[in-house]
Amino acid sequence: MSDDEPGRRPNADGAGDRSPELSVAVVDAETPGNVGTIARAMKNFGLADLYLVDPPELDPEGEAYGFAGAAREDVLPGAREVSFDFLVEQFHTVGFTAVTNEDATKHVRYPFATPAELAEDLRGVDAATCLVFGRERVGLTNHELARLDQVASIPASDDYPVLNLGQAATVALYELRELTVEETQLPERTDRAEERAIEGLHDQFADFLEAVGHPEEKRPKAGRLWRRLLGRAHPTGREVRTLRGVFRKASQRLREE
Amino acid sequence: MSDDEPGRRPNADGAGDRSPELSVAVVDAETPGNVGTIARAMKNFGLADLYLVDPPELDPEGEAYGFAGAAREDVLPGAREVSFDFLVEQFHTVGFTAVTNEDATKHVRYPFATPAELAEDLRGVDAATCLVFGRERVGLTNHELARLDQVASIPASDDYPVLNLGQAATVALYELRELTVEETQLPERTDRAEERAIEGLHDQFADFLEAVGHPEEKRPKAGRLWRRLLGRAHPTGREVRTLRGVFRKASQRLREE
Repeated sequence: MSDDEPGRRPNADGAGDRSPELSVAVVDAETPGNVGTIARAMKNFGLADLYLVDPPELDPEGEAYGFAGAAREDVLPGAREVSFDFLVEQFHTVGFTAVTNEDATKHVRYPFATPAELAEDLRGVDAATCLVFGRERVGLTNHELARLDQVASIPASDDYPVLNLGQAATVALYELRELTVEETQLPERTDRAEERAIEGLHDQFADFLEAVGHPEEKRPKAGRLWRRLLGRAHPTGREVRTLRGVFRKASQRLREE
Repeated sequence: MSDDEPGRRPNADGAGDRSPELSVAVVDAETPGNVGTIARAMKNFGLADLYLVDPPELDPEGEAYGFAGAAREDVLPGAREVSFDFLVEQFHTVGFTAVTNEDATKHVRYPFATPAELAEDLRGVDAATCLVFGRERVGLTNHELARLDQVASIPASDDYPVLNLGQAATVALYELRELTVEETQLPERTDRAEERAIEGLHDQFADFLEAVGHPEEKRPKAGRLWRRLLGRAHPTGREVRTLRGVFRKASQRLREE
């Protein structure tokens, strides 16, 4: 089975169901607040394991815990201080940088993946993977990046592409959420109105146009306008029922006058 | 031309080239640092116009400017203090909330769009649009959300879906970047090696296997393994040239022994 070593990308059925175990490392951060911000984003997007290389002091009464939200209960106190060597040895590593090389003549920061490409790339990869973020002002050094397996960069405005450390990690974790978040807080949207109900609303609107005395020759055009508006809005069943009721009542009242 | 009023979604050719003018409003923020973080994210993702409703004091020596990065030069000093009524009257408004309603029986926070859906939804819409974010602890109130045109919510872990204000705005602006960033800092990746060069590397690798004395009956399998590896990696021209050179040299040396 030499073609099927552990850690390799699986090519069998169900590969899409597997995802790497994702963790985060922050190298040589200066400001505790950024560590707290990253811990919060980790908890927001379903990650738990935070590694710190040469971290600032994280005072439980200080900014790191102040910025961590509910991650002050678990992610932050569970963070492990490790060496850079540890990251390289234990993980498939992805280094984030705002500054890439321009082309393939330099290898340290090229080729790179955007976070969206990285999400595609890691889907189904069964390997412990660590997302590595660097210090505030200069990010990861060339020496550090050269030792990491992949390079990732967040597309931003060419005028000012350098995100704050905590914001960069938040964007990366947001984009990778399909690998880490099992269930979001958002309910499924399964309540788009049935076509029959929407057609009933169109009939009711046509009746309303008649009741309100809209000129007969203009009614088809107004009906089309209304159809296009609803066609774009994909109304819910509730919206359709309410509007049908309103137009029905209006038509009745208008005819009673 | 009553079917083609200004502000409506255009349905003519080229609609996809237009995008709404996007601005950001922050309602009743408590911490200047969050306003600075949002200003920085705006500049990172190509937005300029920031509106503040009941803002905290923004001391040029304080946290707002400290967190704003290069946005301390333009976005932050250019921020306008306005009323909530001003936002409702002047813009197509999108209110962000982590907490949606569960279904269509409540309308204040339902239906909602994810940021990715919102990006699709606004593409080609020619209307001044304002993304509205609420106060730190409780976000936008029901009364405020009821007055806004659309609701958006960032999918996050059901265990802890509430992002920090600055982080939520950063994610939203990142996801909407295709509407606002004309040019990113990232170079185009146009340097994937040509097929001919990759096949040349495969030939070189086969020759190397022979030179190294890999058993003849195992060489096809090793060749396929190598082909699969390169097939997933999409090597650059530079990578292919370098590896061909290394294998050529190795084969020569091995045969000189």
